[in-house]
Amino acid sequence: MAASTVESVPPGGAHETDVIIIGAGPCGLFAVFELGLLGVKTHLIDIQAKPGGQAAELYPEKPILDIPAIKSITGEQLTKQLLEQIEPFGGKFHMNEMAVSLDNTPDGKWSIATDMGTTVTAPVIVIAAGGGSFQPKKPPIPGVEDFEGKSVFYAVRERSAFEGKNLVIAGGGDSALDWTLNLQPIAKSITLVHRRPDFRAAPDSVEKMHALANEQKIDFEVAQITGLKGINGQISAVSVENEKDGAYDIPCDTLLAFYGLTMKLGPIAEFGLNLTENRIEVDTEKFETSVPGIFCIGDMAAYPGKLKLILSGFHEAALMSHGAFHYVFPDRKLKFQHTTSAKGLQAQLGG
Amino acid sequence: MAASTVESVPPGGAHETDVIIIGAGPCGLFAVFELGLLGVKTHLIDIQAKPGGQAAELYPEKPILDIPAIKSITGEQLTKQLLEQIEPFGGKFHMNEMAVSLDNTPDGKWSIATDMGTTVTAPVIVIAAGGGSFQPKKPPIPGVEDFEGKSVFYAVRERSAFEGKNLVIAGGGDSALDWTLNLQPIAKSITLVHRRPDFRAAPDSVEKMHALANEQKIDFEVAQITGLKGINGQISAVSVENEKDGAYDIPCDTLLAFYGLTMKLGPIAEFGLNLTENRIEVDTEKFETSVPGIFCIGDMAAYPGKLKLILSGFHEAALMSHGAFHYVFPDRKLKFQHTTSAKGLQAQLGG
Repeated sequence: MAASTVESVPPGGAHETDVIIIGAGPCGLFAVFELGLLGVKTHLIDIQAKPGGQAAELYPEKPILDIPAIKSITGEQLTKQLLEQIEPFGGKFHMNEMAVSLDNTPDGKWSIATDMGTTVTAPVIVIAAGGGSFQPKKPPIPGVEDFEGKSVFYAVRERSAFEGKNLVIAGGGDSALDWTLNLQPIAKSITLVHRRPDFRAAPDSVEKMHALANEQKIDFEVAQITGLKGINGQISAVSVENEKDGAYDIPCDTLLAFYGLTMKLGPIAEFGLNLTENRIEVDTEKFETSVPGIFCIGDMAAYPGKLKLILSGFHEAALMSHGAFHYVFPDRKLKFQHTTSAKGLQAQLGG
Repeated sequence: MAASTVESVPPGGAHETDVIIIGAGPCGLFAVFELGLLGVKTHLIDIQAKPGGQAAELYPEKPILDIPAIKSITGEQLTKQLLEQIEPFGGKFHMNEMAVSLDNTPDGKWSIATDMGTTVTAPVIVIAAGGGSFQPKKPPIPGVEDFEGKSVFYAVRERSAFEGKNLVIAGGGDSALDWTLNLQPIAKSITLVHRRPDFRAAPDSVEKMHALANEQKIDFEVAQITGLKGINGQISAVSVENEKDGAYDIPCDTLLAFYGLTMKLGPIAEFGLNLTENRIEVDTEKFETSVPGIFCIGDMAAYPGKLKLILSGFHEAALMSHGAFHYVFPDRKLKFQHTTSAKGLQAQLGG
């Protein structure tokens, strides 16, 4: 899995580039390539920790059978091969960050701010956000919003933030299991709470968790969370219940709840673009939205005939790049070159 | 090279299918896949002996660097991988045949006739003919048209037709060299004529040719062809000249002239479609032409923003297949499935 991670730009700071790509799925990654062929520089912003989007997140090990000239490939491997292909163009990755606002700058460019305090400015925005951003599902616990972001979290952005904590981890999937195993060495205590004894997670992780519980290094409770106790955003206990023991409290100072991910359009909905059923309307010449300088490619693009296929996103990236070029280099003439005959491109790509 | 050949349907006969694809380049091949996913059967017609189109014909060993998720691939290898991918759908190939006419049938279908006497009937035609058909360049020999197709040929369709012949082979590229080597064992005599001592051909073939000449199994003459002698379409000699020997005749009964290939739209120009600068106008929803039931994808398609990229042809094949489906199965509802989740497709594709 390590093969498809990238070096992320540290959060914060103000950056300038030619094109900001929102979403580092297959389509956003290939956009780096097509823009790179035209000499256009890129920054990518993605809420996930690793590039690859849905392909890497939802089906990392499922075969995809309709990528042209590739009989069968996993989402993980597809991401790896795209990263290899785009490597010569040096796109910068802002991972683990969500694009939350879009503004005009006085000199007619666009500025994107993220939830981690990063800003990136560029003449062109490309939205390649797939079905939207994967956002954690909120657990159905009364009053949970009073504690969110203070002592209740739905994702781990920095592992060290949980050092020395008395943690309750809730959930039955891979995230709950992986973070139980991963945080156990640095947390003061961990109680894993899941409503059933069975898990939807890698059997190996489940086995390791049970081993830690047998050694009393963690607690595992089969129970339903019913409420939270605490004041001023700081929890002191998670209230649970089950058939055997009835209702009881588990004292703690932090709750990490992993109830799965849901796909949301998110802040992009507020960007002022023409939307059709949560997708963004584009032309089929340049895949530009109703706002000049803002393009949309991949599953989030809406146009007559649109199919949500990865191979369509690749085509859209190519045509978008020719449209974007003219915003980035308004005075230059675009010279279309084929990779089979352009010596300069071949040298750059090592072909 | 043998890896990307296919078993061709013998010429002649009347065939029926769902979709006739004109052109077996990368785009035509991938159309077999996209149509196959929807249960649509295909026949392909191509004037070349092998599938792969320009990619295989013009740059079989040059790297293509912009196929998504494939860092570098030759035209030959791309063709091979596409043939592997489409294999489960059993598209039928009519190679070495040129589609020369298009007619309506009484029951509202289309019928294509080839120059080899084959007819194929289907409700849908897909033109995926790239820059057009590669046609041999005519040698600049006065009066050559009187002998064409009788004793002067620009291509070998059936090797056995040249058995026992006294052949002159003209040209300095791979075709001239390859056929000199290939026909030497069965021809009565072969004289290779080229205007210069140097060749634009594989060094290995040039070496083998010189070895045969040294053993006096063939003749090699450096000379320019100036005319043909003969009556009623049957040549008796090729007139040549060079600086050393002046003008002289080489007696023979057959001339094979390989002066390179040129790209022509060919008979497709007469199909009654809307043309823009030798390309065919299509919509961007289904890539359908001005004539219902006739689609055009790949380099020959014209629409705003069109780029002549192989990856665009792949996208066009996908959207075309959804349009074609409704002509083939007018009463069925198209159920869109992803290869990552559709069990039936996975079984068929061996994924």
